[in-house]
Amino acid sequence: MTDLTLALDSMGGDHGPQVIVPAVVQALALYPQLNILLVGDESLLGDLLRRHQAQQHPRLQIVHAAQVVGMDERPLSALRNKKQSSMRIALELVADGTADACVSSGNTGALMSMAKVLIKTLPGVDRPALITGLPTHSGGTTYLLDLGANISCDSETLFQFAVMGSAIAESVNGIQNPKIALLNVGTEEIKGNDQVQQAAQLIKETPQLNYAGFIEGDRLYRGDVDVIVCDGFVGNIALKSSEGVARLLSHHIRASIQGSPWRRLLAKVFAKKLDASLNRLNPDQYNGASLIGLRSIVVKSHGNADQAAFLRAIQLAKAEVEVALQQQVTDRLEQVLLDKTNL
Amino acid sequence: MTDLTLALDSMGGDHGPQVIVPAVVQALALYPQLNILLVGDESLLGDLLRRHQAQQHPRLQIVHAAQVVGMDERPLSALRNKKQSSMRIALELVADGTADACVSSGNTGALMSMAKVLIKTLPGVDRPALITGLPTHSGGTTYLLDLGANISCDSETLFQFAVMGSAIAESVNGIQNPKIALLNVGTEEIKGNDQVQQAAQLIKETPQLNYAGFIEGDRLYRGDVDVIVCDGFVGNIALKSSEGVARLLSHHIRASIQGSPWRRLLAKVFAKKLDASLNRLNPDQYNGASLIGLRSIVVKSHGNADQAAFLRAIQLAKAEVEVALQQQVTDRLEQVLLDKTNL
Repeated sequence: MTDLTLALDSMGGDHGPQVIVPAVVQALALYPQLNILLVGDESLLGDLLRRHQAQQHPRLQIVHAAQVVGMDERPLSALRNKKQSSMRIALELVADGTADACVSSGNTGALMSMAKVLIKTLPGVDRPALITGLPTHSGGTTYLLDLGANISCDSETLFQFAVMGSAIAESVNGIQNPKIALLNVGTEEIKGNDQVQQAAQLIKETPQLNYAGFIEGDRLYRGDVDVIVCDGFVGNIALKSSEGVARLLSHHIRASIQGSPWRRLLAKVFAKKLDASLNRLNPDQYNGASLIGLRSIVVKSHGNADQAAFLRAIQLAKAEVEVALQQQVTDRLEQVLLDKTNL
Repeated sequence: MTDLTLALDSMGGDHGPQVIVPAVVQALALYPQLNILLVGDESLLGDLLRRHQAQQHPRLQIVHAAQVVGMDERPLSALRNKKQSSMRIALELVADGTADACVSSGNTGALMSMAKVLIKTLPGVDRPALITGLPTHSGGTTYLLDLGANISCDSETLFQFAVMGSAIAESVNGIQNPKIALLNVGTEEIKGNDQVQQAAQLIKETPQLNYAGFIEGDRLYRGDVDVIVCDGFVGNIALKSSEGVARLLSHHIRASIQGSPWRRLLAKVFAKKLDASLNRLNPDQYNGASLIGLRSIVVKSHGNADQAAFLRAIQLAKAEVEVALQQQVTDRLEQVLLDKTNL
């Protein structure tokens, strides 16, 4: 393994450096080839590193940033007024080649806008998308994109998402010729709005893409397909509704667990199983999501990620660097676009 | 209680009259004021009624229909070519005042189109919506509309949904001044597309409506609000994703239940609790959904409803007739529209 360097926005997310610093210390111990640039408030980060006995770590460096992007801040305002923010400086370190990838658990909209301006999209990509892997019944992964980076998408954008999703399923998960579906309100060809109808046509016409038709929300987690494409509004609602229903189920089951101390003790075993399943079901908390379609790797960790979740986001960024994800996506895009031009 | 008459499309759904006839026999025994018009194939229904010793029931009458609308049939084709279908005749019985409400578990799109043509929308309503009650953490109900009857909606349509949803929450569930939210990808005012932005403005400006802002998918089941409004594409994805995740959780938990016979026996108790929760979580199977905004009551039972689920759809139709739902919705609409004209 060759060395790799990650730039971390250390001030983002609900818990900020309190969870990020210990996650970093853990990651450095796990991966000898990993170098970390910790971007954020120098004195705060220094204190935390001392507390974790990591202030002298040879593969760790603090890069000072005087500003923080607020979680509710408007993207445009962040772009204009937060030139010294940890988010922006972390992205700049990737843009200028100092780091191989960036991880942030900050404001998604701001991250998306800054990444677009600083890192730029790949040739052939109009808009980057947010993508994550959903857990399936069989223990596999189905990629869902977009998760909310693009509120409305035309058919050409959905088509580009299909190309990028296909590349990530192939390179990160090693799936040959990944099956691609469009999320829709029915499986019959006549169903849906103009955007999904036309996107279906575009994907179908592209020999490099393995189109599997429309899929409904109840089959998101079945593992029938490898990539599911939708606009960011729909993807966000699908993912968050899933989270809501998982919480409701958990609530119902816990409320039903009562009775003798002996029975309650046994119930604890099942509550634990339930927790494990619930955690698997909060995909962006569990796995992190990637901003795909940019010239470098940017991983978005969940805003309320804890130490374990932030570590997984670091691991995801590392894995994407190691498989040279951007190159794979670029190759796939070129292949498809070249073929389209030749038609 | 005064008498009421329901017209049932007895040939619709995946299981057709096999589950509908026993549900009807049960309903007639439960409610002495209930009269049923069983619309469908005369000889098939006659046979089934004999099997259930109900062929001579004084409050039950078969109305023959020679055709059936296919579950995958296009709405327009059903409208043109299925004039003798059980679905259409059941709706006609409501339209001409013979019956007070109609229940069908047939093709949703066809039911919607036929109902619009035969029963017509209420004054002030452009498009009927499909609405259901979601179960909440506290055991209450939050209404969600539209569930898929209208794939894309402008802000005026979303506004009308808010008015209708508010009327149903008040009349059927007795909630005073129901809280209304718009389903969106964030809670900040700047979030979402033009349609939800403008709909928010319209609802906010209407003093008769209690606007509670935007709500995200993870709070669908929290019971924070009484009515949640979205377009049919988003509503369908939210509801079906919920179903998908409930199935995944159930799968994970069942797969984790193994070990000694003693432990497996105990596990069964929890599996049962889980099943009860899962059933509550499939709202349109559990409660039935209503087509709202029409001049008469039309209840849509889930396509694969079993006997118990179809009985619940009958109960829902009966409840809506008893509270004079259409009148309540009409009053609410007139109130709001009158007020708007006066402005």
